[in-house]
Amino acid sequence: MPSIRVTVWNEYRHEKVHDKVAEVYPDGIHEAIAGFLRNQSFEVRTATLDEPEHGLTDAVLADTDVLIWWGHMAHHDVQDEIVERVRARVLAGMGLIVLHSGHFSKIFTKLMGSTCNLKWREIGEKERIYVIEPGHPITQGLDEHFEIPHTEMYGERFDIPAPDTLVFVSWFEGGELFRSGCCYHRGAGKVFYFRPGHETYPIFYQPEVQQVIINAVHWAAPAGGPTVTFGQRPEPLEAVEPYEA
Amino acid sequence: MPSIRVTVWNEYRHEKVHDKVAEVYPDGIHEAIAGFLRNQSFEVRTATLDEPEHGLTDAVLADTDVLIWWGHMAHHDVQDEIVERVRARVLAGMGLIVLHSGHFSKIFTKLMGSTCNLKWREIGEKERIYVIEPGHPITQGLDEHFEIPHTEMYGERFDIPAPDTLVFVSWFEGGELFRSGCCYHRGAGKVFYFRPGHETYPIFYQPEVQQVIINAVHWAAPAGGPTVTFGQRPEPLEAVEPYEA
Amino acid sequence: MPSIRVTVWNEYRHEKVHDKVAEVYPDGIHEAIAGFLRNQSFEVRTATLDEPEHGLTDAVLADTDVLIWWGHMAHHDVQDEIVERVRARVLAGMGLIVLHSGHFSKIFTKLMGSTCNLKWREIGEKERIYVIEPGHPITQGLDEHFEIPHTEMYGERFDIPAPDTLVFVSWFEGGELFRSGCCYHRGAGKVFYFRPGHETYPIFYQPEVQQVIINAVHWAAPAGGPTVTFGQRPEPLEAVEPYEA
Amino acid sequence: MPSIRVTVWNEYRHEKVHDKVAEVYPDGIHEAIAGFLRNQSFEVRTATLDEPEHGLTDAVLADTDVLIWWGHMAHHDVQDEIVERVRARVLAGMGLIVLHSGHFSKIFTKLMGSTCNLKWREIGEKERIYVIEPGHPITQGLDEHFEIPHTEMYGERFDIPAPDTLVFVSWFEGGELFRSGCCYHRGAGKVFYFRPGHETYPIFYQPEVQQVIINAVHWAAPAGGPTVTFGQRPEPLEAVEPYEA
Repeated sequence: MPSIRVTVWNEYRHEKVHDKVAEVYPDGIHEAIAGFLRNQSFEVRTATLDEPEHGLTDAVLADTDVLIWWGHMAHHDVQDEIVERVRARVLAGMGLIVLHSGHFSKIFTKLMGSTCNLKWREIGEKERIYVIEPGHPITQGLDEHFEIPHTEMYGERFDIPAPDTLVFVSWFEGGELFRSGCCYHRGAGKVFYFRPGHETYPIFYQPEVQQVIINAVHWAAPAGGPTVTFGQRPEPLEAVEPYEA
Repeated sequence: MPSIRVTVWNEYRHEKVHDKVAEVYPDGIHEAIAGFLRNQSFEVRTATLDEPEHGLTDAVLADTDVLIWWGHMAHHDVQDEIVERVRARVLAGMGLIVLHSGHFSKIFTKLMGSTCNLKWREIGEKERIYVIEPGHPITQGLDEHFEIPHTEMYGERFDIPAPDTLVFVSWFEGGELFRSGCCYHRGAGKVFYFRPGHETYPIFYQPEVQQVIINAVHWAAPAGGPTVTFGQRPEPLEAVEPYEA
Repeated sequence: MPSIRVTVWNEYRHEKVHDKVAEVYPDGIHEAIAGFLRNQSFEVRTATLDEPEHGLTDAVLADTDVLIWWGHMAHHDVQDEIVERVRARVLAGMGLIVLHSGHFSKIFTKLMGSTCNLKWREIGEKERIYVIEPGHPITQGLDEHFEIPHTEMYGERFDIPAPDTLVFVSWFEGGELFRSGCCYHRGAGKVFYFRPGHETYPIFYQPEVQQVIINAVHWAAPAGGPTVTFGQRPEPLEAVEPYEA
Repeated sequence: MPSIRVTVWNEYRHEKVHDKVAEVYPDGIHEAIAGFLRNQSFEVRTATLDEPEHGLTDAVLADTDVLIWWGHMAHHDVQDEIVERVRARVLAGMGLIVLHSGHFSKIFTKLMGSTCNLKWREIGEKERIYVIEPGHPITQGLDEHFEIPHTEMYGERFDIPAPDTLVFVSWFEGGELFRSGCCYHRGAGKVFYFRPGHETYPIFYQPEVQQVIINAVHWAAPAGGPTVTFGQRPEPLEAVEPYEA
């Protein structure tokens, strides 16, 4: 079986302008994620906003099985044309994993069709993530719940379509909760939204978070199903007496 | 209980240029639909593409509980700004019923996030529509299946997100099948896609089709649930020891 | 439109043996629930475990649109034959609302097919119930969340099939969360599981809880869809050349 | 990665009493299925109704990752105790693939909670199976649709809970359709119902049918998620001021 080809996309702006972020992710969030993925049997590359075509050329996308997306402060700087290119690839079968503040990215909101808005608060409170669907492959190797000691809070109502499978829900110390692991089929592709991950907390170094992302890569990889075709089928598959209205 | 306020939107182009269509729907498809809805306890108005703002001003939308959409040849003439206005209203709670070739409308594809493409053929074949979820209110008054004697075929793969509830599936004489009644929650609004209906067949005069559309108006009307709010919540609901990363 | 006929079923044992329960629900939990339902346009009757046939004769069930179920300490005293009778009625279209500890009732576990087990704790902690699907009719008249000041905790993993629609999720002070409002189609019937409600807390007097139960009665009432038939259909609907294997 | 351990269970009665069946499946349906599975990297065993404990001892089930079930004329001869044993294993994580007339087996109906009834006809008509969710791993290697030239018809309404994922729908020559590939999470286990397969047609020799079953074994294998625990949690995870009702 060939390796799964993963492209980790990061906005990569916070890290260059905020010391606190650079301290946590000195090589960028993308490198932190790519790092633990490279320890798996994946082929991993990275791409960032300020590269030509945001690093997401047709060639790169054609060579990508699963795209991981982290963005926050510069969603609007992502060119619509490239968003549309990524969306077409997802609908054609590429997997997409959207992390944390990527809930407001153009690619996620366009694929969901709703605002993807939510409530938030940043006081470093505790998050406890519960496995809701323990038979789902994205839960492999996890306990029934795990904690993130300090994080930004995201709270319901999370304005998304009900996921095809709801895998995780988060409890927050400050009194909110959130659907934090959401699986979708979109076209021939699969989309996984995963809430954890922030620029000022070392969340992507946490083993459980890494485990979930690794599991999600396996789950989101193209399934090898049929190539779907559309459009006119003038010839019926079965004999039909033609009728003139 | 106040009446449900329905706006029937029609592209209203075919009827003006094709004699065959004008013969079937002399006052336009919107009037055929508005006609049987007016026999119910609904407040019904119509709106069409070539009216100012496509007849969908802020005032009209604010006064609409359920919007019915029929379009086909001129999807691209619908202004993006107005599509966005309709989308915002749906996400805020307005019901939307999308009929037949509306599968390719901007409003439906934007709310779904996928291509909404399909296979099609126009030889006037038979369609048999099966009730899949007999406890759903959209099936009220129907038999287990009903037939449309002559229609355009739509065939799978229909490139939509899996519906929250799949209510109808269609069998076609020529050998295809199609998910023809699909319910979605999107934001605080509800969306129902219903396949039947074509400009050259008298399908909107068929009692079962009318019954489904009437049922769908009842189902899609705003639920009166909470007004959802988003954004920062600096004050936690429960005491939290603040933490500095 | 005729009134919805509601039967409120209660085990009615706790109230007779525990003073604390009798103090909170002097006429039984069923009367507390029936009380606020009678203020609506419903026809309301009650039935309890120790009546003949548990008060659920064929005649009573035939005359019931929505059955509300509360049980806790005596699930095993409910006769299998009567459980099967109720199940058949649900599958034929009767609505069923299962409250709180009814998660472990025979009728609910048989309809779900899974254990319906969960985690629990009884220290009177706070529950905050969030609306997850604000377009659903069961949320009518609610705010984005409401609180139950003191209650028994139920925590995930709740071993149920993923609901067709997840309407509420609960946050608990002690650190757990729970899918507390779950809608299902089963056969031609609709089932709503609602977590709140306990024998020693005055939860069924709380206006939001009453509002949800009232809403659920409207939602669960029979839809008037087709009478479903099963079995052999020797005559095809379309001409088929018979084939002998 | 260790091999997936598959147990193919067959009623194995038809083959012994009907010459026509014995001709098509001389070693039993179980051996036909086990045969093509052995060509994969699976560890395959078989079990049949008339073996002690139906061949499904605790030891066998403990050593089974995915159980395949074919039954038809003798559903009622399967002991309730063993059905319960299988059900407990599924809820604890074992995969279950139910084929064709297994829709009426005790194990499937108990896991579904509904009657699982349907319409049927046996005149050897054509079935055309459409892929509805082309990103699902069970569709690997398939075309957009495939045909079974002669088969028994199963028609809607199929009285099942709406599947978590609807993968296939079948078109029948005689005018019916059927949800023929249905995925469910139940407990920590996964269940796949697949319609094709009959005792008098050589359907289990058809490459597409074999491909689906092979794919389903991969999909249904235990995910390695958390071991779920239930029951009382007297100690809260977070500090709570105890409250006496």
